[in-house]
Amino acid sequence: MKNRAYRIAVHIVPRAGLLDPQGNTITGALHSLGFKHVRSVHVGRHIVIETEAPDALQAEASVQQMCEKLLANPVTEDFEITSAVPL
Amino acid sequence: MKNRAYRIAVHIVPRAGLLDPQGNTITGALHSLGFKHVRSVHVGRHIVIETEAPDALQAEASVQQMCEKLLANPVTEDFEITSAVPL
Repeated sequence: MKNRAYRIAVHIVPRAGLLDPQGNTITGALHSLGFKHVRSVHVGRHIVIETEAPDALQAEASVQQMCEKLLANPVTEDFEITSAVPL
Repeated sequence: MKNRAYRIAVHIVPRAGLLDPQGNTITGALHSLGFKHVRSVHVGRHIVIETEAPDALQAEASVQQMCEKLLANPVTEDFEITSAVPL
């Protein structure tokens, strides 16, 4: 079967309830800049992967494996995968 | 007017065409792990902001200002704002 190229975005975020010092720092900086209505900020990673696969489902399954094996820390982070977009 | 709470996500990515050493490193690591079909990886930040505003449009406008003033580097990064979700 011929492979097609797909673009898939992954969001990796600190697990809820864990400390997020980077987010707390940004919250403080925004308050100092006058954005007083900000309640909280959480910082994660936005990773865009272009990969080849026979179809969108297999592309997503492959990215799921990448997250489990390399991209996300299974102890401290959660990830979500957006649906594959053909290129 | 009474304020409501909204959750807004922002994706901040390196501007297209600029070097992305972190993305290149991850691409190489994925190839080493057997994901040979990966073409490219781009790494940005995924920031989730909870803020109060009279309505969704003003919440989004406020986050746009935060990106311009603090969160994104206007020389090297692009950002996109997702629509405000009431909490």
